[in-house]
Amino acid sequence: MSEFRILEIKQSVFADNDKQAEELRKELKKEKTFLLNLMSSPGSGKTTTLTKTIAALKDEMKIGVMEADIDSDVDAHTISETGAKVIQLHTGGMCHLDADMTKQGILGLGTEEIDLAILENVGNLVCPAEFDTGSSKNAMILSVPEGDDKPLKYPLMFTICDVLLVNKIDVMEYFDFDLKACEERAKKLNPNIKVIPISAKTGEGIEEWAQWLREQVKKWKEA
Amino acid sequence: MSEFRILEIKQSVFADNDKQAEELRKELKKEKTFLLNLMSSPGSGKTTTLTKTIAALKDEMKIGVMEADIDSDVDAHTISETGAKVIQLHTGGMCHLDADMTKQGILGLGTEEIDLAILENVGNLVCPAEFDTGSSKNAMILSVPEGDDKPLKYPLMFTICDVLLVNKIDVMEYFDFDLKACEERAKKLNPNIKVIPISAKTGEGIEEWAQWLREQVKKWKEA
Repeated sequence: MSEFRILEIKQSVFADNDKQAEELRKELKKEKTFLLNLMSSPGSGKTTTLTKTIAALKDEMKIGVMEADIDSDVDAHTISETGAKVIQLHTGGMCHLDADMTKQGILGLGTEEIDLAILENVGNLVCPAEFDTGSSKNAMILSVPEGDDKPLKYPLMFTICDVLLVNKIDVMEYFDFDLKACEERAKKLNPNIKVIPISAKTGEGIEEWAQWLREQVKKWKEA
Repeated sequence: MSEFRILEIKQSVFADNDKQAEELRKELKKEKTFLLNLMSSPGSGKTTTLTKTIAALKDEMKIGVMEADIDSDVDAHTISETGAKVIQLHTGGMCHLDADMTKQGILGLGTEEIDLAILENVGNLVCPAEFDTGSSKNAMILSVPEGDDKPLKYPLMFTICDVLLVNKIDVMEYFDFDLKACEERAKKLNPNIKVIPISAKTGEGIEEWAQWLREQVKKWKEA
């Protein structure tokens, strides 16, 4: 049947980012600002999901959004229309944000009045997973058209996330996507990952996600 | 209306990869092996497109495929069933392939009998665009569910590709995707880019794409 060689190519090594991430996390804790790091592939629906999330939570807490992109500011435009505080971060070609870059964003956004800061990371399932940004929690979106095999191909991302939002479930019937298989693959990598199927377009599942986020922000402020 | 600050974060600098890429290209030219570097986001349909491409061309030329992934070998399994020669490259966490890594893959695959070598790069719209792999031509896939704004957000990828395959056009009616706007955005970055709408699932557009590839392989061998 299937026959082929597997060739291992050498890995690169990253510098000490973890210490800076821990320091940022401590500072944010002191200021009672919860930082969510939201990651996904390009086009999986991060910005639309954020728009719905902000609508669900904006009367209860102050929300600030950092839109990280290689270029353009289309997402910051979209988010600014929700009334949330927003800042666009241009990464100058960088494919991810590390803790130092995130801190630059946090300083730009200002945390003093922010209960929930959200970093919309660069659209990429690889590099952002390798860098602790100093976030309180990590969330990722996988959209139905991308396929249920993604936990097999990008295992680190699924391993480091606290929540997996499976988006675009409104088009489930047009794609060959097995939600149960996807969830099993994710939980094999990360037994504690919470999986929430949503449709940012129709709003389905958004309240469950908002409720999870509400509880996390509350815990962060109390602890 | 929209109001926000734009913060420029510092860029990283890459080492000299271009020279190695030129050398690899020369070697491949001498061996009359055309190398296609195929890039896209995760889940846009690279492997399914390859399966159809191989079916269209395998009686005319010898095809070898390098499947680059962080982890797993699901794609190599799929491709091996087409009868094409295939090798799985594990990048050990790396988000892209540079010329040296591609050469390791080429050596693993062997070029002597290969007319068309295809590198299925890691699913990522950012990093792979920054590294010349030594390929004869670059192609990318953008799938309809990802959205028509991607040229604005990942401009380098659209700039360095010779062909843009717009995949999953069979589900066009369920998504808000403006093909004309997408094409205009891509051509603004790269006036010479060839745009071919396809559905790897139904086969629509595959013959146009195969014909383009056929011509490129022919030119490469003759020149």
